[in-house]
Amino acid sequence: MEEAVKLFGGRSSPFSCRVECALKLKGVKYEFIKEDLSNKSDLLLQYNPVHKKIPVLVHGGKPIVESLIILEYIDETWPERYPILPKDPYERSKARFWTKFMEDKESTFWSLIFATGETKEKIVNENIEILKTLEEHALGDKMFFGGDDIGFVDLAIGTGIHWMKVVEDIKEVKIFETCNPLQAWFERFSEVPVVKESLPSHHELVAHYKTRMG
Amino acid sequence: MEEAVKLFGGRSSPFSCRVECALKLKGVKYEFIKEDLSNKSDLLLQYNPVHKKIPVLVHGGKPIVESLIILEYIDETWPERYPILPKDPYERSKARFWTKFMEDKESTFWSLIFATGETKEKIVNENIEILKTLEEHALGDKMFFGGDDIGFVDLAIGTGIHWMKVVEDIKEVKIFETCNPLQAWFERFSEVPVVKESLPSHHELVAHYKTRMG
Repeated sequence: MEEAVKLFGGRSSPFSCRVECALKLKGVKYEFIKEDLSNKSDLLLQYNPVHKKIPVLVHGGKPIVESLIILEYIDETWPERYPILPKDPYERSKARFWTKFMEDKESTFWSLIFATGETKEKIVNENIEILKTLEEHALGDKMFFGGDDIGFVDLAIGTGIHWMKVVEDIKEVKIFETCNPLQAWFERFSEVPVVKESLPSHHELVAHYKTRMG
Repeated sequence: MEEAVKLFGGRSSPFSCRVECALKLKGVKYEFIKEDLSNKSDLLLQYNPVHKKIPVLVHGGKPIVESLIILEYIDETWPERYPILPKDPYERSKARFWTKFMEDKESTFWSLIFATGETKEKIVNENIEILKTLEEHALGDKMFFGGDDIGFVDLAIGTGIHWMKVVEDIKEVKIFETCNPLQAWFERFSEVPVVKESLPSHHELVAHYKTRMG
C-alpha cells in the first residue's frame, strides 16, 4: 500500500505552489491541507517546529520542510517518474547553484513590497540585475532552464517570478520589460499544463496582496 | 584515466575546509590551489563569475561552486566511497534542512565580528539560541549529526563552529559555555583524523583574524 502524502500549504504561496507542481509532474496523489496562516494548525507547528511555516510535505507520517528540499525529496522518492533534477552530478550542481542563487536574492525581491521613492527605484534596479544574470548565465538560448523540459530551476524560479509580476503590478514598477528572453521563457513555463493548473491567477494574487498591503 | 581534481581555496576559510575534509574522506586525490583573496586569480574569476569566491572545485575542467553544493557533487560523483549524505531520502532531507538552517544563520554569526556593546550582547544571545536549537532538534543523543560517523551536517556545522570559536575568543564573549552536548560533539568531531589534519589551528586563525580586524 502506498503511504499517504499530505501537503500543508497555501494557495497564495510560491513555495507551496512549486511543491504542488512537482507532485503533479510525478503523478503523486496527495491531499492538500490549506493552512490559515493567521491561525496555524497544531499539526503544522508539530511538523515544522523550527520555522512554523508552510509548505510541509508529510509522507507516511514524516514531515519534510523547506520547498527546495521537498523538491529533492520528491525526486529521490519517486525516481522512476518525471525527472526533476538532471541525472548528471555536474548538471545537478548547476541546477542547485541557480536555485540557491535565487533563494539568496529573495529578500531583495520581497523588500520591494514596502519600499518607496528612491529606495524603490534602487530595489527595482537590483532585481533587474539579478534577472539579467539569470538570463545570461543560466538560461542562455535553452527552451527551459532544465533543457527541453521544465525541472528544478524552472519550478523554483518560475513560481518566484509569477509572484514578482504581482508585486510589479501593485508597486507600479517595470522590472521585466527589458528581460525579453526571461519573459519568453516565463510564457513557455506558464503554458506547461501542470504549471497552468497550479499557478493562482495573476489577478487573484494582485487582489490578495493589495488587501494585505492595505 | 581519472580526471584531474583541483580545489581553489584558502586555508582560513571554513567553506574551503569542509570541501577538503570531504575530498579526504572520499580518498579523492586533488591539487589545492591557494587563492590570494586580495588579488583573485583570473582562473577563479573565470570559474566563478557570479560570486567570484572560493571554494571552487574543478573536476575535469568543469567548475562546481558553493561549498554545500560541492559536498553533494563529491558524494554523487564518488558514491561507492565514504557516504557523506545518508542514503534514505527522508534522512537526506533532514541533513539538508540542518545545513540550510545553519547557512541561513551565517549572517547572525559573522555580524558578531564588528559588533560592540549591547548589540554584541544581543548577537551573542542569538547565536546561543541557534546552537540550542541545533542541540535539541538535530543532535539529540547521537554521537554525530550523521549518526555513528561524521557526514554532511557535521562537515558543515563543525567547520562553522571551529571559526565561531575563533570569533568568540577575539571578541571576548562566551557562546559555548552552556552548550555542553554541542561542545562534546565538537570535541569528537575535531578528533576525527581527516578533520584534525584539515582544520587550521585555533591560534593561527585567531592571529589571522586579529590582524584583519585590527
